Amino acid sequence: MRESVPGPAVGDAFGGVLRACHEAGARTGAVFQIVERDDGHIAASDAAVYFAPVEDWPELERKACEEITGRALDVGCGAGRHASVLIAAGVEVIGLDSSPGAVAVARARGVDARLGSASVVPAGISAMDTVVLFGNGIGLLGCPRQAPVVLAELARVAAPGARLLGSGHDPCVTTDPIHLAYHDHNRRRGRMPGHLRLRVRHEHLASEWFDYLLPSETELAELVRGSPWRLVEIRQDGRGGYLAVMQLR
Amino acid sequence: MRESVPGPAVGDAFGGVLRACHEAGARTGAVFQIVERDDGHIAASDAAVYFAPVEDWPELERKACEEITGRALDVGCGAGRHASVLIAAGVEVIGLDSSPGAVAVARARGVDARLGSASVVPAGISAMDTVVLFGNGIGLLGCPRQAPVVLAELARVAAPGARLLGSGHDPCVTTDPIHLAYHDHNRRRGRMPGHLRLRVRHEHLASEWFDYLLPSETELAELVRGSPWRLVEIRQDGRGGYLAVMQLR
Repeated sequence: MRESVPGPAVGDAFGGVLRACHEAGARTGAVFQIVERDDGHIAASDAAVYFAPVEDWPELERKACEEITGRALDVGCGAGRHASVLIAAGVEVIGLDSSPGAVAVARARGVDARLGSASVVPAGISAMDTVVLFGNGIGLLGCPRQAPVVLAELARVAAPGARLLGSGHDPCVTTDPIHLAYHDHNRRRGRMPGHLRLRVRHEHLASEWFDYLLPSETELAELVRGSPWRLVEIRQDGRGGYLAVMQLR
Repeated sequence: MRESVPGPAVGDAFGGVLRACHEAGARTGAVFQIVERDDGHIAASDAAVYFAPVEDWPELERKACEEITGRALDVGCGAGRHASVLIAAGVEVIGLDSSPGAVAVARARGVDARLGSASVVPAGISAMDTVVLFGNGIGLLGCPRQAPVVLAELARVAAPGARLLGSGHDPCVTTDPIHLAYHDHNRRRGRMPGHLRLRVRHEHLASEWFDYLLPSETELAELVRGSPWRLVEIRQDGRGGYLAVMQLR
C-alpha cells in the first residue's frame, strides 16, 4: 500500500529541543531529544541533560572544568551548561554552536554565545587559551575527512600553548547488537565503526543529516597525529567514556 | 545530495518499548515511546506511563474502574496497567492487544492477555460484561470507516446489557499550531480533524502505519449512532479529555 509521508521540514531541530526545554524550566520529563541514525535506528533522551547542573556531569568533565584558566572557547556549547559554570568560576568563555536556537538559549542564560561551527569559527574569536569540546564533543570532529579541518580551525583560533579538552566515547564499549551491527556495516563500507550519520528530530522539524564521530582512543590518536595538536593524555572513566587532553604544538 | 537511508525495519515497535521499559523496572526516564505522524511530526513520551500506578491515572479512568463488575475485556491492554488493578479488585479480566510484546509483558505481570485487535477479537472471548478502552483507547476506533467494524466486533463478544467504557480526547482542545495545521490538512482531504495516521518507532523498529482517531464528543456520538451500542453518557475532564459510557442496545 502506498504511504503518503511528506516527512519533516528541514530546520533547527536541535534548537527547537533546547528552546522547548528551556521554556519548560529545564525540568526532566518535559522535552525529549530524538536522534535518528541513517540505518533507521532512533532514540530519545531527556533534553534536561543539556541543562544539567555540575553535580550531574560526568566526573571527568567536572574535574577538567576545574583546570580551565584564561579564555575558553566552548565548541558546541548547546544551552551553555558548561559555559555558565565556567563563567561562574571566573573563566572568560565564548560559546559556539551551529544551532541558532542553541545560541539563543545560551545567550538567555548569560553566555556570550556565537553562531558558528567547529570547522568555521566566526570572526572575532582568537587567542583562546582553552578549547572545550564537552558533552561527547569529540563527536564534532565529524569524520576522518572532516577531523583535520576541525583540528586546524580550532588551532587557528587558539593561543600559543593552548589546551584542547574533549570528551568522547569508545563506540565498541557496548553490547547492544544493533549498535554492533551498525559498526560492522560501517567497517564493510570502509568507515570507522563509530562514524555515525545522524539527524535530530523535533516536532515537525528535522536537522540536516550530519556526521558524528565516536573514535576509539587509538583512532583518536591517529586523527590527531599530523594536526597542530599533540595528544597529551587520555583519561578514562572505565565505561568507554574518556577525556582527551591536547596541547597546541 | 543523495541520502542513503534504508529506514527502520517493520516490526513490533510498541512491544519493544514495553519490553524495554518492563526490563528497566518500569521506572521513569528509562525508556521513551516515539510516535511519528504522517505529516512528519514526531514526539517522544516516557513509556513508564504504560505502567503507571492507579494514583497517577486520569481521575475519570480511576473512577470508571471502580464501577466495573463481572467479566471485563481490556481492549488495547498494553502492559496491563488497568487490567492488573481490576484483577486486584476482584474483576475477571481478559486483556487484548495487537502487539505480541505487549501481550508478553502483560502476561508477565499476571494478566490473561491475548493477541488480537479490536476489529478481530480472537476465539474464546464472549459474553463480556464490560468492554474497556482506556488510555485514550477510543482511538482504536481507528477511523470513521473502521469504527463501525470495531463497535460491531466488540458488541459480538459482549453480554446482553454490557457496558463499554472508553477514554478519548477532543483533538480541537489544543493551541499547538502544528496540530491545528494537521487538523486543517485533514479537513481539506475530507477527514475528521482528529483522524491521525501514526506509527511507533523503537530502536531499529517501526510499526506499520495505523489509523488512530481522536473524535470530538459530537463526532463520537455520530460514530456510535447506528452501532449496536447506545451512547449513555460522556464525562468530561474540562481539558478536552472525556470518558464515554455506552450500553449494548
